[in-house]
Amino acid sequence: MNPSILCERDASGTIATVTLSNPDKLNAVTASMWRELTQVMRRLHEDEALRCVVIRGAGATFAAGGDIEEFLSLRNTYEQARVYHGEWVADALNSIVACRHPCVAMIQGACIGGGLEIAGQCDLRIAGASASFGAPIMKLGFTMAHTELAGLLALAGPATALEILLEGRLLTAPEAYAKGLLTRVVADAQVEQETYATAQRIVAGAPLVARRHKRLVSRMSSNSSPLSADEIRANYDYLDSEDYREGLAAFLDKRRPQFRGR
Amino acid sequence: MNPSILCERDASGTIATVTLSNPDKLNAVTASMWRELTQVMRRLHEDEALRCVVIRGAGATFAAGGDIEEFLSLRNTYEQARVYHGEWVADALNSIVACRHPCVAMIQGACIGGGLEIAGQCDLRIAGASASFGAPIMKLGFTMAHTELAGLLALAGPATALEILLEGRLLTAPEAYAKGLLTRVVADAQVEQETYATAQRIVAGAPLVARRHKRLVSRMSSNSSPLSADEIRANYDYLDSEDYREGLAAFLDKRRPQFRGR
Amino acid sequence: MNPSILCERDASGTIATVTLSNPDKLNAVTASMWRELTQVMRRLHEDEALRCVVIRGAGATFAAGGDIEEFLSLRNTYEQARVYHGEWVADALNSIVACRHPCVAMIQGACIGGGLEIAGQCDLRIAGASASFGAPIMKLGFTMAHTELAGLLALAGPATALEILLEGRLLTAPEAYAKGLLTRVVADAQVEQETYATAQRIVAGAPLVARRHKRLVSRMSSNSSPLSADEIRANYDYLDSEDYREGLAAFLDKRRPQFRGR
Repeated sequence: MNPSILCERDASGTIATVTLSNPDKLNAVTASMWRELTQVMRRLHEDEALRCVVIRGAGATFAAGGDIEEFLSLRNTYEQARVYHGEWVADALNSIVACRHPCVAMIQGACIGGGLEIAGQCDLRIAGASASFGAPIMKLGFTMAHTELAGLLALAGPATALEILLEGRLLTAPEAYAKGLLTRVVADAQVEQETYATAQRIVAGAPLVARRHKRLVSRMSSNSSPLSADEIRANYDYLDSEDYREGLAAFLDKRRPQFRGR
Repeated sequence: MNPSILCERDASGTIATVTLSNPDKLNAVTASMWRELTQVMRRLHEDEALRCVVIRGAGATFAAGGDIEEFLSLRNTYEQARVYHGEWVADALNSIVACRHPCVAMIQGACIGGGLEIAGQCDLRIAGASASFGAPIMKLGFTMAHTELAGLLALAGPATALEILLEGRLLTAPEAYAKGLLTRVVADAQVEQETYATAQRIVAGAPLVARRHKRLVSRMSSNSSPLSADEIRANYDYLDSEDYREGLAAFLDKRRPQFRGR
Repeated sequence: MNPSILCERDASGTIATVTLSNPDKLNAVTASMWRELTQVMRRLHEDEALRCVVIRGAGATFAAGGDIEEFLSLRNTYEQARVYHGEWVADALNSIVACRHPCVAMIQGACIGGGLEIAGQCDLRIAGASASFGAPIMKLGFTMAHTELAGLLALAGPATALEILLEGRLLTAPEAYAKGLLTRVVADAQVEQETYATAQRIVAGAPLVARRHKRLVSRMSSNSSPLSADEIRANYDYLDSEDYREGLAAFLDKRRPQFRGR
């Protein structure tokens, strides 16, 4: 099978599943897959009916890294590396952050290198107990691009980033959880069920609120400058939404709210 | 019973207990309680004899959130929301940070929404094993105010903030501990004892040192600009204190120090 | 035995062990030891053949703090404190950060005050299960210098810093691990073996990559300004290295790489 990014919807049209697929290489992410991931995520971003994106690997692994064979031809000079990391990889990672919908990583097996970078940009990470995590690129003789390291630092802090990069060990799922890399660890057999249960919990909330929370956390985590008056005003947009009226009414009526995304 | 903030001292006058009390609504924090909390904390800040503040809820719960019924009348427009969140809630949360005395949250039962925000501004958090944590406001159709989100981000980082806000699940106490939301988890029956034992450990230290540490951690965590010469000088004020002489003398004499707060 | 900093190499010359030695006082760090540590670390930094530094205490303890007896004569005035903390201690802590080689703390027994500060500047921390961690200086009547607090905040965040400083409790190794202070906790009898196994894993990687990762994590964690064009270019230096060619070749040949550090 050719390396590719698959994308499908559930019957309701509210949950999209994006699959990293390169089954001959444990879903190693090729240059074409990085670029395709960007395109897929940008299309999902535009889809107003959607409420949640699940990102997973084909089969029972997430992704074992970038496609190292390609490096000899596609990332062999500084000019190439600037395009490979500064555009292809960075655009793909940014497209997950910039996607208006919450993204949940469903993690089985290897979540390494580029795989860890993709999972790290998702909003939640549900992992199976036997999944493994790391970026042992010191054994390959190269450094993590600063644009990719930024995400690892934001998620796990400098001590865990240094452990991963200097020691090159793979972390177990319980270790990765203890160090803040994961939202939750469940039995391997439960990963898919728990991931979609998580997606359903997200879908049950007001979608405008989810989008606003995702954007606001990103803004406040990546930029220490105070919010502008417009940014502050935007965080109160819910006051003009039908969903806010519905949320309060449902609470006071002790019933489940029905949010319509407006 | 009317919603209110109760405040009492122990016999020694060194520990104050502030109680969020709205027993008919699991101590949901009303607008008047937010404002009263500010007044109470500001008074405690001025009390030089005090050495520690415990913040708890009435009965066996901390606080289940804001008072949602009030939102229909008190937080229904942008102008109202600016006052409600930007003044009443923000002032109350800031009054905990600005209080010169260390503040310990004693957490039983529900610690949700506004309750979580209050606990998150305390300096230490002691929780019972069956306490629960979250802010499932996506089910109510509204967004966390950025002034309140800032505290959650500072305490728990973006990944945990997103989990709480996007998924709307309540976290168990062990989950909240693993994610950095709590100082310690103990058996439910031990929460009160452990909280006051913690307060006593704080009281046993030099009070000027506690105040300086609280202010310095806040300053360095919230503002990345270098300390001014005056700020640096102030951190060495202990050199002129009686308590520093007493601390060193007691250490060298192998006895307990008796600090007098000067 | 006189207080001193010992330094020795393993047979291969790739791993140096730096030992904090003041056995009569649980390796309490004297002013002369702080200054000697700076000199030792600066020499190791210059040694291009080296690949990893282990920092440990003499015997079965790391270091129980600074040497408090000395404070009466050496840190009794503001001018003295500026030299003691702003030069002697700060230079020593900075020399660990500035050392080009990865540094691993091997922690047994007491890791307190100045000991915790030294361990906190290392890149990885391997601790025995019965080690203990803290900085109960509130019992001694003095404040942590802001230059030292900065490292604790960067490693563990404000909540754990406040717990340590306000409550003055010693944390157990499992507590310290849960709060992000440690890379790994192992049985006491395994600390030495696990520390040197960790050092060997570091040595097995490309040394230029380790140095670059250490510097890049430090740069991006301590300074939020964007990288300069030169800094970005430097992160791709590996493209011109023999070790990068060797790393890719070994991966594709499915053999262990032999890195020569160039």
